[in-house]
Amino acid sequence: MKEKTLGILGGVGPLATAYFMEMIIKMTDADRDQDHLSMIITNHPSIPDRTEYICDNSRPDPLPVMIGDAVKLEKAGSDFIVIPCNTAHFFYDEIQQSVGIPVLNMLEETIRYAKSKLSGVRKIGVLGTVGTLASGIYKKVCDKHGIEYAKPDEDIQSRLTEIIFGQIKAGKEPDFASFMQIVENMKKQKCDAVILGCTELSVIKRDFNINRKDIIDPMEALARSAILKCGKKLKHG
Amino acid sequence: MKEKTLGILGGVGPLATAYFMEMIIKMTDADRDQDHLSMIITNHPSIPDRTEYICDNSRPDPLPVMIGDAVKLEKAGSDFIVIPCNTAHFFYDEIQQSVGIPVLNMLEETIRYAKSKLSGVRKIGVLGTVGTLASGIYKKVCDKHGIEYAKPDEDIQSRLTEIIFGQIKAGKEPDFASFMQIVENMKKQKCDAVILGCTELSVIKRDFNINRKDIIDPMEALARSAILKCGKKLKHG
Repeated sequence: MKEKTLGILGGVGPLATAYFMEMIIKMTDADRDQDHLSMIITNHPSIPDRTEYICDNSRPDPLPVMIGDAVKLEKAGSDFIVIPCNTAHFFYDEIQQSVGIPVLNMLEETIRYAKSKLSGVRKIGVLGTVGTLASGIYKKVCDKHGIEYAKPDEDIQSRLTEIIFGQIKAGKEPDFASFMQIVENMKKQKCDAVILGCTELSVIKRDFNINRKDIIDPMEALARSAILKCGKKLKHG
Repeated sequence: MKEKTLGILGGVGPLATAYFMEMIIKMTDADRDQDHLSMIITNHPSIPDRTEYICDNSRPDPLPVMIGDAVKLEKAGSDFIVIPCNTAHFFYDEIQQSVGIPVLNMLEETIRYAKSKLSGVRKIGVLGTVGTLASGIYKKVCDKHGIEYAKPDEDIQSRLTEIIFGQIKAGKEPDFASFMQIVENMKKQKCDAVILGCTELSVIKRDFNINRKDIIDPMEALARSAILKCGKKLKHG
């Protein structure tokens, strides 16, 4: 079988891209370099801010730059493309239409992964930035799968915003207790699973070794799917 | 000024490539995503083993694959190329001749960085795999700069091989005391600086927070040079 190559449309943000790349390598069952996936990565941090544009479309449009990178990844020999950024999936349909290779949808992969991990899942709570939640992208995918969608109320969201922007993005230690209270608040709303719909929250999961079946990391769901689609094996199960 | 794009010829090995990418991001003075470097990375772990070919050239030749990746990086819009792997520099001249853009030479950058950090440096000790040291690539660059070159004797080398292959590559905790004894042994041979000429040793420097002026990390020297050549600023100094 011809070796498959994964294209990663990255840079949004750059550290998340490096983290995603490392996650794929660590999740692949490999005894030597040659057992790992072949990848091509565009790490293009000057892509205009996605949330700014979603909230105010008089701001610079990130889509043309993302389409340019997708086309570049296709031309360089990628067999399919992934975008390790939740918010960027607001532009998913246009990016998919601009190339002749499949673009895996991280949100779709996440909901499918949640369904495979937790049979009979009926309600999912999504944590993320105000921008991601306002865009409604996760709600759309939940609706498609017949799953009820929930997000934090305003008071809880402001605590989450503080963790994402005031702590993690600012390079400070996140308030882990506060984060877990936010998770529990979603569970009290009868959510069967809680999705970490923001890369900064995936980083909390890694740094605090959170290993709960009902806390779903979209980066992990996307990495799993990419490894399997490249014909490689997963290290754990 | 048009944004410059760094091409990273990677995959040798894959974790070293992810580590190098993260190092560049963390060393760049940036307040927001848009202050970071634009990069294109080929992470191609199926490139045949470099050391095996250097030691026995009846084995598969990694050069054609590396040239293919260099050409791909040029076509995708890279302004210059770096290869975050010491051993791969055995093939440096042929790779540089195959593209029309500059390929930064990690070994050259390392010796220049050592000279800038330690004025009057006369003798340099290089630690690395048997393959890298047998290839003589660091000796050649030292000769060019009029710097005396030293490598560990056979007994010390076998302890170093154990740390690189038996410990770090095998996913075990490295014997830090033994590693520091190896460094001191080079210092006793009157080396003004010790070069960590193997990615696994760069990882020891990071994990144990080694911050000594006379211990030089080639990955760091290459990252510094790449950031400056892209017109970006270094976070420290």
